[in-house]
Amino acid sequence: MDDKPLGTRLSFCPHCAAKLLIEIPTGDNMPRYTCGACNTVLYENPKLVVGCVAEFDDRILLCKRAIEPRLGYWTVPAGFMELGETLAQAAARETLEEACATVTLGSMLAIVDVPEASQVHVFYRGTLDEGRYAAGDESLEADLWAPDDIPWDEIAFRSGQIALKQFLAQKEAGIEQLHTEIALRNRRD
Amino acid sequence: MDDKPLGTRLSFCPHCAAKLLIEIPTGDNMPRYTCGACNTVLYENPKLVVGCVAEFDDRILLCKRAIEPRLGYWTVPAGFMELGETLAQAAARETLEEACATVTLGSMLAIVDVPEASQVHVFYRGTLDEGRYAAGDESLEADLWAPDDIPWDEIAFRSGQIALKQFLAQKEAGIEQLHTEIALRNRRD
Repeated sequence: MDDKPLGTRLSFCPHCAAKLLIEIPTGDNMPRYTCGACNTVLYENPKLVVGCVAEFDDRILLCKRAIEPRLGYWTVPAGFMELGETLAQAAARETLEEACATVTLGSMLAIVDVPEASQVHVFYRGTLDEGRYAAGDESLEADLWAPDDIPWDEIAFRSGQIALKQFLAQKEAGIEQLHTEIALRNRRD
Repeated sequence: MDDKPLGTRLSFCPHCAAKLLIEIPTGDNMPRYTCGACNTVLYENPKLVVGCVAEFDDRILLCKRAIEPRLGYWTVPAGFMELGETLAQAAARETLEEACATVTLGSMLAIVDVPEASQVHVFYRGTLDEGRYAAGDESLEADLWAPDDIPWDEIAFRSGQIALKQFLAQKEAGIEQLHTEIALRNRRD
């Protein structure tokens, strides 16, 4: 949290290359990076991470991460939302990229605030079309896991663990609700 | 949409001031601004706008905008989420800033994708504490509106209109659900 509220350390204006200042702009109430040469204010805001708990034949799709952070740990397919996307498009794209799987998305399952990382994580329910999947570029493996076999101690992130537990508990209870939670720390180690 | 997928036009690396390139980084699949000098990749992602449909004595708090876009139009208190916040903190802060009102937040009311603007808008239900409010710095006026008097033709943004309509319809029906919708255009003019 040492860089908050300014987030990333920035030095030069991306528009005119002048040295950036840190000041509270007129009409604002917190410090921002500003450019005295071209009057740009650089706003930094939280990012959306979007994913999917996708099921096929009562088993759940997980990917073993091939990249840091948490390389070698299992995760539900999820990643940063891109410009121009909807939440649902991002969830489906991440599932395709990480697990080479096309999904039919269902309802929104969980929204997890991760304020420490300035992130909001959104998870959908989904069903794997035709049950096809494979490891994408960012995954070492992709596999379907029966609920009783899920490797809880090897799940990469707390938000994914929350989404998985909610998916299973709600399915067991025969309900579909949006679960909201704040994860003060998202790393599980 | 002319700048998509690159969003804002950027020219210089904010870390080292070298001229930025546009290229697909190794392991990525879409063009990004990258720095050949210090290897920075500048990712741009959608922003979260968070707000609150706040009620007191069966009337709803709206603010008349003192700033562009849509200066002079009415809006539910809402604005860009800041680094380090939770969604609920952002909703409460925006209500305080725009309407000088403290709210007790209820459940999440609506999530509206605004892909054209690369934004996701999240609205909570809320109750005004003690019924106190006033125009904040970004508002010309703040006022409580009876449902039948809401100036629908003067509501600033489609997402706020969606949230207001859902709030009233669900209250009438005695339910509280999360409404999700895609607003292809958010400007109402």
